[in-house]
Amino acid sequence: MTNEVLALAVDLISRPSVTPLDEGCQQLMAERLEKLGFNCESMVFEDTTNLWARRGTEAPVFCFAGHTDVVPTGDLNRWHTPPFTPTVIDGYLHGRGAADMKGSLAAMVIATERFVAEHPDHKGSIAFLITSDEEGPFINGTTRVIDTLEARNEKMTWALVGEPSSTHKLGDIVKNGRRGSLTGNLTVKGIQGHVAYPHLADNPVHKAAPALAELAATTWDNGNAFFPPTSFQIANINGGTGASNVIPGELEVMFNFRYSTEVTAEVLISKVEHILDTHGLDYDINWIFNGLPFLTGDGPLLDATRDAIFETTGITTDAQTSGGTSDGRFIAPTGAQVIELGPVNATIHKVNECVSVTDLELLAQCYQRILEKLLC
Amino acid sequence: MTNEVLALAVDLISRPSVTPLDEGCQQLMAERLEKLGFNCESMVFEDTTNLWARRGTEAPVFCFAGHTDVVPTGDLNRWHTPPFTPTVIDGYLHGRGAADMKGSLAAMVIATERFVAEHPDHKGSIAFLITSDEEGPFINGTTRVIDTLEARNEKMTWALVGEPSSTHKLGDIVKNGRRGSLTGNLTVKGIQGHVAYPHLADNPVHKAAPALAELAATTWDNGNAFFPPTSFQIANINGGTGASNVIPGELEVMFNFRYSTEVTAEVLISKVEHILDTHGLDYDINWIFNGLPFLTGDGPLLDATRDAIFETTGITTDAQTSGGTSDGRFIAPTGAQVIELGPVNATIHKVNECVSVTDLELLAQCYQRILEKLLC
Ligand SMILES: [Zn+2]
Ligand SMILES: [Zn+2]
Repeated sequence: MTNEVLALAVDLISRPSVTPLDEGCQQLMAERLEKLGFNCESMVFEDTTNLWARRGTEAPVFCFAGHTDVVPTGDLNRWHTPPFTPTVIDGYLHGRGAADMKGSLAAMVIATERFVAEHPDHKGSIAFLITSDEEGPFINGTTRVIDTLEARNEKMTWALVGEPSSTHKLGDIVKNGRRGSLTGNLTVKGIQGHVAYPHLADNPVHKAAPALAELAATTWDNGNAFFPPTSFQIANINGGTGASNVIPGELEVMFNFRYSTEVTAEVLISKVEHILDTHGLDYDINWIFNGLPFLTGDGPLLDATRDAIFETTGITTDAQTSGGTSDGRFIAPTGAQVIELGPVNATIHKVNECVSVTDLELLAQCYQRILEKLLC
Repeated sequence: MTNEVLALAVDLISRPSVTPLDEGCQQLMAERLEKLGFNCESMVFEDTTNLWARRGTEAPVFCFAGHTDVVPTGDLNRWHTPPFTPTVIDGYLHGRGAADMKGSLAAMVIATERFVAEHPDHKGSIAFLITSDEEGPFINGTTRVIDTLEARNEKMTWALVGEPSSTHKLGDIVKNGRRGSLTGNLTVKGIQGHVAYPHLADNPVHKAAPALAELAATTWDNGNAFFPPTSFQIANINGGTGASNVIPGELEVMFNFRYSTEVTAEVLISKVEHILDTHGLDYDINWIFNGLPFLTGDGPLLDATRDAIFETTGITTDAQTSGGTSDGRFIAPTGAQVIELGPVNATIHKVNECVSVTDLELLAQCYQRILEKLLC
C-alpha cells in the first residue's frame, strides 16, 4: 500500500510540465477521479490548463487545491539525477516538482481513493481545483476557475492547498493565512541638469532620500496573534543617465508591502502618500494590488488539520501566516476557509528538489484523516 | 582685414574633426605659425593628435591653448545648414565647432600674425598647445603634452584657453579658475532576500537612505570670493533585480563633488566616509580625482585680459570660476596662470552651432592686445 503514492508521484514528475504546461498530468488525475465518481471539467484559459473535479452535489464542499506546473530546472549540470526522471535515492524521491507539488497531488488522489473506498456515501462533496499556472503570472489559473465557479454560485467550504508548508518535519507548520501584498511604483520628478550648474537643476534623489529614509523607518503596525508586523521593502531604485556629470531628472522606486490584517491597503496608501507629500515631493505613484490578507482561524478546517497531523505524525503543528503568496489568496475571498499543508520545502525551486518517500505516505494518511473528520 | 579670421575659421570648420580626429586642422595652423618663426612639434599619442608650437626660447611664455576636435553633429535633419559646410547667415557663421572652438583658434592665429608683424622682437615666447581630444576622454591630449613639457622642464607662464566663456556678449565673462571635481562610486552592501522574509535579508537601500539624505543636506563650505559653495550631487543610483519580490543585495551610488578652494579632496573624502560610518553602513567606495580646483587671481594675466576686453569691446568683464571642467585644469598644476576667454557659448554642443562674425574679429583684436600687454 505504501507504494501507491510514490507510483503516482513518479508518473506525474516524469511529465516535464514547466509553467504553463500541464503535459497530461491533470488528465492522469481526472481518469483516477472519474473512476471514483467525480465529475471532471477541464477549463482551458489561454495557455493554461485547469481541472475542476467534484464528487457529490451537497454542501459542505471540501476542496484539494494545487498545481501541476513546475518551475524551470535551472542548471542541468548541477542535478545529480535528470530532473524529469524521478529517482529514489536513500529514501528520497528526486525530481523537479517532487516537493512543489506533485508529491502533494499524488497524496491527494490516493487519500481520496482510500477515503471513498471506505466511505462511499460521505456527506457533502469532495472537489479538486488544479491549475498549470501557479508558478507563472497566475492570470489564467486559479483566479479564472474561481471566477467561473462564482459566476454559477458554486462555493467551497474548505480548501486544503498542497503547497509545501513544512520546514523540518512533515506537518510541523501549516499556513492558515497569508499577508496581503501591495506594490508601489513611485516616480519622483526633478529637473535634469549638469552637475556643474546645480542651481539650474533639481536632484530627485536628494529630494527623495529623506522620504525614503522615513518610509524605511516607519512602523506600520505591530501585527497580531496571527500576523507578523507589516513589512515595507524597497525592491528597486534607479536614477541617472550613467554619466557622472548629469543630475538625473527622475528617480524610479519600486517597493512592496506584505501587510497584516491590522491595516488595509487603503491605510498604507494614504500613509505613504502623506509621507511623500510632507517631504514636498513632486511624484507619480502607481499601486498594484497583489492580494488581500486572509486568515483561517480556529474552526473545523484548522481543528481537523491539527488533529490529523498529530494523529499521523505525533507532531503538534504550528499555524503560521508568514512567507510568500499562494493561490490560497484567490480562494479565500470567496468565503472559503483555506489551509496550506504539504511536505518539507527545503529543496523547492532548487536543483535536486526532493521529497521523503515516507512523508508522501504520511501526507496521504493525513489528508485522508482530514476528509474523515470533515465529511463523516 | 576683417575677413582674415572668418576665412581661417571657415577653413577649419570645413574639416569634420569629430573627437579624436584632427583632419589636418593642426597642420593648417602649423603652416601659418612656421611662417612666423614658430618651431612646431606634432605630438601623436594613440588616437590623438596634438600640436606644441613655440616662437622664442625665453621666459615669460604666453601660450594659446585649445582644441581642434568637435562634438558629434547630432540630428543632421535639425541643422539648417550642413554642419561641416560653414555658412554665414545674418552675420553668424554656422557650423560644428564655430563657437567651440575653431573660431577661437582662427582668432589666435590671426592675432599672432598681426602681433608678430608689428613686434617681431617681442620679449619672451609665444606658444600654442592644441589637442584633438578635449571633448573626449582627455587621456592622450593636453595632459600628455603637459607631461612631455614638464619632463623637459619647459614651462608656461600664462595660458589663455579659447573656450567659449562669454554668455551674452563677447567678453562679458572670463573664467579665471575652475572648481575641483571628485567622483565617488559607492557600493552599499546588504543581504539579498525575498520580501516575504525580510528578517533573513538586509536591505541596503533602507540602510543607505538616511546617509544619502545627510550627504545631500550637508553644507561642505560657503565658497569664497572666487568660488561658489562646494556642491554635492548624486548622479546615479541603482539597486534591485527588477522583480518586485526581491530585496536587493547591493546599492550602487555614483556622486560628484564640484569643490572650491576652501576644501580639499582629502577633507571631502574624510567627511563622506565619516557620514557613511556614522550610519553603520557596510560599503566599498572608489574615488576618482577628475581635477584639482585652480584660481588665477589678480595679476598680469587677469589684468591684461580685463583691460584688453574693455579696450576692444567696452565691456567690464566678470571673472568667474563656475561651470564645467576644461583643459585648463591640466595646465594650472604646472604653476601657470590660466584664463579662459572665447566667444558666446549659447549654441555650443547643439545643432546649428554658430558664432558672430563680428565677434570673431573682436576676439582676434582682444587676443592681440593681451599679447601686447604681456610681451611688449
Ligand atoms: Zn507550489
Ligand atoms: Zn571646447
